[in-house]
Amino acid sequence: MVSPTDTSDVIVTADAMLGSKSIATIVIIIAMQKEALPLVTAFKLSKDIDSSFPDGVPWVWYHGMYKDLNINILCPRKDPVFGVDSVGTVSASLLTYASVQALKPDLIINAGTAGGFKAKGANICDCYIASGVAFHDRRNPIPAAKQYGIGLQKSFATPNLISDLNLKVGKLSTGDSLDMSEQDYVSISANDAVIKDMEAFICWERR
Amino acid sequence: MVSPTDTSDVIVTADAMLGSKSIATIVIIIAMQKEALPLVTAFKLSKDIDSSFPDGVPWVWYHGMYKDLNINILCPRKDPVFGVDSVGTVSASLLTYASVQALKPDLIINAGTAGGFKAKGANICDCYIASGVAFHDRRNPIPAAKQYGIGLQKSFATPNLISDLNLKVGKLSTGDSLDMSEQDYVSISANDAVIKDMEAFICWERR
Repeated sequence: MVSPTDTSDVIVTADAMLGSKSIATIVIIIAMQKEALPLVTAFKLSKDIDSSFPDGVPWVWYHGMYKDLNINILCPRKDPVFGVDSVGTVSASLLTYASVQALKPDLIINAGTAGGFKAKGANICDCYIASGVAFHDRRNPIPAAKQYGIGLQKSFATPNLISDLNLKVGKLSTGDSLDMSEQDYVSISANDAVIKDMEAFICWERR
Repeated sequence: MVSPTDTSDVIVTADAMLGSKSIATIVIIIAMQKEALPLVTAFKLSKDIDSSFPDGVPWVWYHGMYKDLNINILCPRKDPVFGVDSVGTVSASLLTYASVQALKPDLIINAGTAGGFKAKGANICDCYIASGVAFHDRRNPIPAAKQYGIGLQKSFATPNLISDLNLKVGKLSTGDSLDMSEQDYVSISANDAVIKDMEAFICWERR
């Protein structure tokens, strides 16, 4: 196993989004509630009581207005059996889908901590924005399916966000394991990734 | 890489379900449209035109009545960029969630082909029903999160189904890669799995 250095993969402020008049509602997907709390406090968001989501779904919704932006932070709840944050692509994909249905956001952001590769220039406490995303644990040797599994996507260009917040920029690779097997390392290297997380890819829509 | 033998992980007939008066609507999630077509033909199902699902979602819905059962078979569509079936846990979890919202099924079945392990007694063309499901590619070395990642669940007891259809029974391990890395093999062995697939786990609800 290889242990990537902890770092932050995306940093978000609403100020940075105000340049676009068409953005009114923002959904921020964060896998762990502890990661979300600093933003919840900064934006003075309220925890949802009368949910817009179907009864019984295992999500936490913080929302409120910041200037003229409707800010929504959504996290999976703790797993009811194991008592830990429901990290990974399955929880994040369901939460993102349901958020799109319920809140019709103009912008979806995935934010949180990630692993970073020292050899690629990442350091602890760096703030990165992903320039591209891909999977490293959906391997398929059938030629037509190989690229579907990896699913490489370029991110939106955000030059103002990057310069205003002085962010580092690098490719991100997503997989459902916190650790990294030798095979994962081969795949992450093939993805040319600087940062490694467990959810970011699923907030992506290629069309 | 190790290549498990092709086999079938679950076989389904509506007759086998008729014992329970409370089952009226069945959803069958199948990852590949080719796998679904024999059942679509057998049950004389129609492909959906006026969808109950949100506009633009990438799913195919076959439905119809068989005796007094409302049968629904749902498949992900081909990936629009890569032109292959959208296999794996993310597509299957979204499709299952949306099916529950739209169709309120009494029973959800995941059916399809799977890999099987000869050393565990599996042969090509065997029909298995999973006695338990677990993930093999959601590794997390943090002790509290390890079991969440694996997520081991026992299946419902289906003694009549097993004896009426003469099914083989074995544990199933789910992961997002078609191939199997050395690390996957270690995890699949730890799961004591006879069959290996790419979607089954996500149709499971532990509560």
